[in-house]
Amino acid sequence: MAFDFQIIESDGVTAARAGRLTTPHGAVDTPVFMPVGTQATVKALTPEQVAGAGAKIILANTYHLFLRPGAEVVAGAGGLHGFMNWDGPLLTDSGGFQVFSLADSRKVSEDGVTFRSHIDGSKQILTPETSIEVQHALGADIIMAFDECSAYPSERAYAEEALARTTRWLARCVDEHNRSGDKDRQALFGIMQGGAYHDLRRRSAEEITAHDLPGYAIGGLAVGEPKDVMYDMLDDCVDLLPRDRPRYLMGVGSPDDILEAVARGVDMFDCVIPTREARHGDAMTARGRINIKNARFERDYGPLDAECDCYTCRNYTRAYLRHLFKAGEMLSATLLSLHNIRFLTRLMERVRASIKDGSFTKLKADLLFYYYGARK
Amino acid sequence: MAFDFQIIESDGVTAARAGRLTTPHGAVDTPVFMPVGTQATVKALTPEQVAGAGAKIILANTYHLFLRPGAEVVAGAGGLHGFMNWDGPLLTDSGGFQVFSLADSRKVSEDGVTFRSHIDGSKQILTPETSIEVQHALGADIIMAFDECSAYPSERAYAEEALARTTRWLARCVDEHNRSGDKDRQALFGIMQGGAYHDLRRRSAEEITAHDLPGYAIGGLAVGEPKDVMYDMLDDCVDLLPRDRPRYLMGVGSPDDILEAVARGVDMFDCVIPTREARHGDAMTARGRINIKNARFERDYGPLDAECDCYTCRNYTRAYLRHLFKAGEMLSATLLSLHNIRFLTRLMERVRASIKDGSFTKLKADLLFYYYGARK
Repeated sequence: MAFDFQIIESDGVTAARAGRLTTPHGAVDTPVFMPVGTQATVKALTPEQVAGAGAKIILANTYHLFLRPGAEVVAGAGGLHGFMNWDGPLLTDSGGFQVFSLADSRKVSEDGVTFRSHIDGSKQILTPETSIEVQHALGADIIMAFDECSAYPSERAYAEEALARTTRWLARCVDEHNRSGDKDRQALFGIMQGGAYHDLRRRSAEEITAHDLPGYAIGGLAVGEPKDVMYDMLDDCVDLLPRDRPRYLMGVGSPDDILEAVARGVDMFDCVIPTREARHGDAMTARGRINIKNARFERDYGPLDAECDCYTCRNYTRAYLRHLFKAGEMLSATLLSLHNIRFLTRLMERVRASIKDGSFTKLKADLLFYYYGARK
Repeated sequence: MAFDFQIIESDGVTAARAGRLTTPHGAVDTPVFMPVGTQATVKALTPEQVAGAGAKIILANTYHLFLRPGAEVVAGAGGLHGFMNWDGPLLTDSGGFQVFSLADSRKVSEDGVTFRSHIDGSKQILTPETSIEVQHALGADIIMAFDECSAYPSERAYAEEALARTTRWLARCVDEHNRSGDKDRQALFGIMQGGAYHDLRRRSAEEITAHDLPGYAIGGLAVGEPKDVMYDMLDDCVDLLPRDRPRYLMGVGSPDDILEAVARGVDMFDCVIPTREARHGDAMTARGRINIKNARFERDYGPLDAECDCYTCRNYTRAYLRHLFKAGEMLSATLLSLHNIRFLTRLMERVRASIKDGSFTKLKADLLFYYYGARK
C-alpha cells in the first residue's frame, strides 16, 4: 500500500481531524504545512535545513521546472527527489495556477493553454496530458490535475466556464495517468474550482469526486478575496469532499487561514509566505509578525521568538539577524526562512496534538489572540 | 598558555613547515586557509556549514563591523564569537587595508585616517588606537596592527613613507594593546609593508620584529602586482620574519599563490576568492576552475569535483547546480561556497600531510599541473 490516508482522531467540536498520509517516500502527519520549493529548492535552504525546521513534505512547481531546467533534465537525474536531494514526500502542482498568474500572452482553448514563458518569452503549451507527463517525469509522490483557476472576483459565467473546463480536463488527466502513470508511485489529486459561488463549488465537488481519487484539493481560494469570503466558501466546500481522503487547500499559509481551514476539515496546506516574508525580513512569532529591520532590534539580544525551538532561535539574536539583514547578507534569508517554516510546522504540531486531546478550539482561539493581538 | 605556535615538521627541500597555532578558542594546524566572514558571516553559509567544509578559523573585517553594526552592538553580544555563533578561533584585520581600498575621501595624517563610510557617507576616523579598541570589543583571538598599505605600483617615496608610518603606528598599537588589552585573550600580530622594494621590505621586517609579537603578517602583496613580482618579494620577505612565529600572508587564496607561499615558509592565508567566485558560479576543482553556468553542464549528473568529499559533491550534480545558478537561487551560492572552501581546506590538509612525509615538492608540482593544466 504505497498510498494511504487514515484519520487518527476527529475533533469533537469542529470538523478538524488529525490523520496520517502515507506516500512511497514516507508518512506525513496531518494537518500538514508544506513549504514551497518552486524551482526544486526551498529558497535559501538546504534540504537538511528544511527537514531540521520540521517539514516533512515539500511542494515544487511544475510550471517553473517545465520551463527551466525542463522535465528531461530532472528526469535524467532520476526525478525530482534525486535532483534536489530530498528523499521525503514531494508534491508537484500542475502548472495550472502559474499559467494563469505568471505567463504572458495566455490563450486558453479546450486543448490546453498556450502562453509565453515569463523567462525567455518562448511560446509554450501545457495541456492536461503534458502537465501529467511532466509530473510523471518529475516523479513527485503526489501530483495535481491541470485546472483552470478563475481569479477573484470573476463573473459567474467565467467561473462556471472555468470549472466546467477543469472538470473536462480532470477526466483527461485521469486518463493520462491511467495510461502512462504508475499509481503505486504517484497519487493524482483532483482540484475543485467554482470561484466564490456556492452552487458552482458544489457542482465542481460533485464532478471531481465522480473520479475515485486518492485526494482532492480546493483551488481558486486565497486568490485575492477577503478572508470572510474564503471562510464562507470553506464552510460549504470542505464538507463536499470525501471524509476519508486528504483535503488540500492550495496556496494558504497564514496562521489564521490555516487555523480556520483546519477547523473546517482541511488536512494539507502550502504557501510561499514563510520563505517570501523571511526574505523581506518578516519573522512569524508567537506574539505576531515582526520585521527584523526595525531599529528597536539593534541591541536586542533575545531570540526572534522566545517560544521557538528552531536553529535560528537557539543560536542567534535579533541584533545579529537585524545586522545581517541591514548588511544585505544572504544568511539572513536562510535563518529567517528556517525560523518561519519552523513556526508553521510547530503550529501544525500543536494543532495535531490539540485535535488528539480535544483542546483544538481553545488552541485556535489562543493562537489567534496572541498572534494577531487586538486585530482579531 | 593561551597562545602558542609550534613547528611540527619542516620540509627538507623548501622552506615549508607544518605547525600548530593554539588560541583561546582552539588549535589550528598550519599551513591554514582562513575563509573570510567580512560582516560577521561567511557569505551564504552558516557557521556549521563553514566548519563542515573543514575551516577551523574565520577572518572578519574590522572596517565593516566598525561601520555596521558598530563595535558596541557586537560587544553587547559578548563579542564576535557569540554574535556570529562561531566558537572556534577568529582573526580580525585592522581596517587598514579597507580604509585604503574601500573608503571615500580618505585623508591620512600621522594620527590616523579620516574617511567617509562607503555605506552612508558619514565621516569616520580610524587610528591605531581606535582600531585596537574596536578589535578589543570584537574579541577575536588574533588581532592585527593598523597599517598603511601602499598600492601596486607605488613610487618608492610613497612606499617608504607608508612603511615608516606603519612602523610608528605599530608602536602605538602595541602600546594600546598593552594598556587596555588582554594578551591571554587576544594576540596582536604586526604587519610588514614596503611595497615591491626589497630593501624597504627588509627595513619593515627589522622594524616590526623589534616588537616581540606572537605573529607577523606580510601585507601589501596580492594588491595587483604580477605573480612573479609577488613570488620574488616572498623569496626575501618570509625569511626576514622569525622562524618560531606564525607568518601570515594577507589576502592570498588562489591555489598557486598558496603553494608558492607555503614553499617559502608562510603559515596562514585568507581570501574572499572561494566565496566570491562561488557567487559568480566558479567552482575550484582538482582539474581547474569551472563555471557552472556553462551549457555543457546542463545534463552533467556528476559531482562538481569527483575527488572532493564535501557536502555539495556528495549530494548534488553539476546539472542541479547549474539549474540553481541559472534560476537565480541563493542555494547555488551556498553550495558552491561550501565546495570552494572545502577545496582549499582539503588542499591545506594535503599540504600539511606532504610536509610531514617529505612529499611537498611533488604534491605542489602535481597540484599546479592538474589545476592549471597547460597554463603552468
